[in-house]
Amino acid sequence: MSTGRFISLEGGEGAGKSTQARLLVAGLAERGIDALVTREPGGSEGAEAIRTLLMQGDVTRWSAHSEALLFAAARADHVEKTIRPAIGAGRWVICDRFLDSSRAYQGVAGGIDDAAVLALHAFGARGLLPDRTLVLELAPEQGRLRAAGRDGEAADRFAARGEGFHADVAAAFRRFATHEPDRFRLIDAGGDVDVVAAAVLSAVADLLP
Amino acid sequence: MSTGRFISLEGGEGAGKSTQARLLVAGLAERGIDALVTREPGGSEGAEAIRTLLMQGDVTRWSAHSEALLFAAARADHVEKTIRPAIGAGRWVICDRFLDSSRAYQGVAGGIDDAAVLALHAFGARGLLPDRTLVLELAPEQGRLRAAGRDGEAADRFAARGEGFHADVAAAFRRFATHEPDRFRLIDAGGDVDVVAAAVLSAVADLLP
Repeated sequence: MSTGRFISLEGGEGAGKSTQARLLVAGLAERGIDALVTREPGGSEGAEAIRTLLMQGDVTRWSAHSEALLFAAARADHVEKTIRPAIGAGRWVICDRFLDSSRAYQGVAGGIDDAAVLALHAFGARGLLPDRTLVLELAPEQGRLRAAGRDGEAADRFAARGEGFHADVAAAFRRFATHEPDRFRLIDAGGDVDVVAAAVLSAVADLLP
Repeated sequence: MSTGRFISLEGGEGAGKSTQARLLVAGLAERGIDALVTREPGGSEGAEAIRTLLMQGDVTRWSAHSEALLFAAARADHVEKTIRPAIGAGRWVICDRFLDSSRAYQGVAGGIDDAAVLALHAFGARGLLPDRTLVLELAPEQGRLRAAGRDGEAADRFAARGEGFHADVAAAFRRFATHEPDRFRLIDAGGDVDVVAAAVLSAVADLLP
């Protein structure tokens, strides 16, 4: 049986995470590796139900602290029900957003301490970390244009936050990468989709059997 | 403006917590004190939505850790949206179950460390503790009979746990009371409802204006 691996894709809105997750699964399949694509919040029956709670209603529905606890609960369920069983069965798991999105967004938008987000993760998901985290980096202006070209909701969500917010999130991801160079890789997501896909595959090459 | 107070009622199934909560509100009203009765999990719009998640589906739907995070998220919302505003307005808040139910049930049934439950509460609800916690104590056999007399669901819920479970929960509440004698009072809930109500009122007498 091959060794299961856990890869997360991170980055701002419109950076191409879900597209690159699908392309990575296809690239791995060509190399004979069975990979599962999943996303957060969600990825298991319980976590999807929590996702509905998080996405419904006004953006001020939940305090930053309640929201952090709900994300941690969803992630705990996702890890237990979906991610660990797949890795245990020798599959690769490609996850569209994971812990580092909570660290970046709840840190920047909610003012929650990074140590507190990590402590909730240590409790809920027994601190499971990806073998590799790929940060898709895109200039905020390009992210805005891509989000605008997608659908009204994505464009609204992007526009609802100020420009400084997107820059702060991008800076947070870069800061995490600096502190954990073994786990993180920064990927320039501004180029053609196939060029980015090649960079993504190359960034996990050392993990291939 | 009078000083708001926060009272929680704890104890096993069938101990009479919701009845005594209502009677306490009536007793306080006779003394000119405006009190709000609330309950957990729930007590605010967001917390009630989380309650639905916790109550729906199979009992094995959530892991002990996910469940602890969901309870902490619900409690954080309940404290922020309902309890703190009421206390701040000078009202008394009478809560049917609170933090100590998480400590007792998740400790006994889920094997979650007491320190971990308290840490989640410190994060989510900024560690708010009741001014007084009344533990309604009833012999497990009496609790079973009362639960059986109420409705099928309560009887089923009681019967689904072994006798040892109910004894362990009761022992947990007594242990908490021993460690925090200022906050806790043990109330014999085996007598007539009016006798218990008088004991409850007497156990908060020192908090009256």
